[in-house]
Amino acid sequence: MQNIFQINTDKQNGLYDITEKVKTIVSKSKVKSGMVSVYVQGATAAIMIQENWDQSVQNDVINLLKKLIPSGIWQHDAQDNNGDAHLKAGIVGPGETIPIIEGNLGLSTWQNIFLCEFDGQRSSRNIVVTIFDAEK
Amino acid sequence: MQNIFQINTDKQNGLYDITEKVKTIVSKSKVKSGMVSVYVQGATAAIMIQENWDQSVQNDVINLLKKLIPSGIWQHDAQDNNGDAHLKAGIVGPGETIPIIEGNLGLSTWQNIFLCEFDGQRSSRNIVVTIFDAEK
Amino acid sequence: MQNIFQINTDKQNGLYDITEKVKTIVSKSKVKSGMVSVYVQGATAAIMIQENWDQSVQNDVINLLKKLIPSGIWQHDAQDNNGDAHLKAGIVGPGETIPIIEGNLGLSTWQNIFLCEFDGQRSSRNIVVTIFDAEK
Repeated sequence: MQNIFQINTDKQNGLYDITEKVKTIVSKSKVKSGMVSVYVQGATAAIMIQENWDQSVQNDVINLLKKLIPSGIWQHDAQDNNGDAHLKAGIVGPGETIPIIEGNLGLSTWQNIFLCEFDGQRSSRNIVVTIFDAEK
Repeated sequence: MQNIFQINTDKQNGLYDITEKVKTIVSKSKVKSGMVSVYVQGATAAIMIQENWDQSVQNDVINLLKKLIPSGIWQHDAQDNNGDAHLKAGIVGPGETIPIIEGNLGLSTWQNIFLCEFDGQRSSRNIVVTIFDAEK
Repeated sequence: MQNIFQINTDKQNGLYDITEKVKTIVSKSKVKSGMVSVYVQGATAAIMIQENWDQSVQNDVINLLKKLIPSGIWQHDAQDNNGDAHLKAGIVGPGETIPIIEGNLGLSTWQNIFLCEFDGQRSSRNIVVTIFDAEK
């Protein structure tokens, strides 16, 4: 089973919680034991599993990546002025695979699925959710 | 096929080799050609593929992450005082998928599977191993 | 379906675009909706999804990793003098999973699949491509 959904992003750098969207797709699949692959198209975005108690960890992620990967100093900036966005996306990575356990997304209490936007705002980011059954 | 096992961790930051546990589960599955997903629950731990010749690379991983992501300077520290642990976990990521080749885990000689603990010690970390057959 | 191919690398640190090789394998599989796992064996190499408009982003990736993870200062250098290569490989990670959508690799326009070499040159790097069908 595969489902593609879109979300829009309103910040240049920001994390967007997509856990509920993925949960709904997993629930509809009726898979009891398996895996879900969550993948974002676009070379300046990424998927990260992270806590969502409040905004603090999301802010910390953005601030850490800004510190490690400053903007404006990359060869690619001569083309698009978004070299830092590509590097952040490459290091974090475009996808995560998460187990499905007893019909539910196998996240722990403090794990949520975030789209990381590094070159926003964007009217539409494509997220591909693909589900596999481990019992077949 | 899916199997969940627990390990305890005795350090605040440490790598724990779980290769043998995963190998045993792969062997029992009888899958010849496929993939194993190894996923740790908890937003302050991660899975890394790394060499296990001796302790040196494991120490280097911990020291690198301490240097890049110092403790005590994050917004999230106001809640739990473990902002660095969340950031390390998010960057390394909670899961890896490894091929199964001719019935064996498709690691090379120097690749081992490590649980990375970033907020220990913990009496129990849950590791979810899910196996998929590529021949079906 | 599983396919293992080899490529040689001619630089100590370099990115090598393997998208066309993976595309050919996906096409031969006839899978319409699913996922491909791309995994490199060897604890000093990695897989990264990244733009391939020109050489700029590839150079930026190498330069960023050299800055964050300098060579010559790690415990593991006492063994092999390649501590930095192991750390880069561990942080980037040995594999990516990419969806298959309507029979095609689900990359966006600017996403390509790169082998990252961190300890070359090497006569042969083993890349394992495993394909899963989400409709079965």
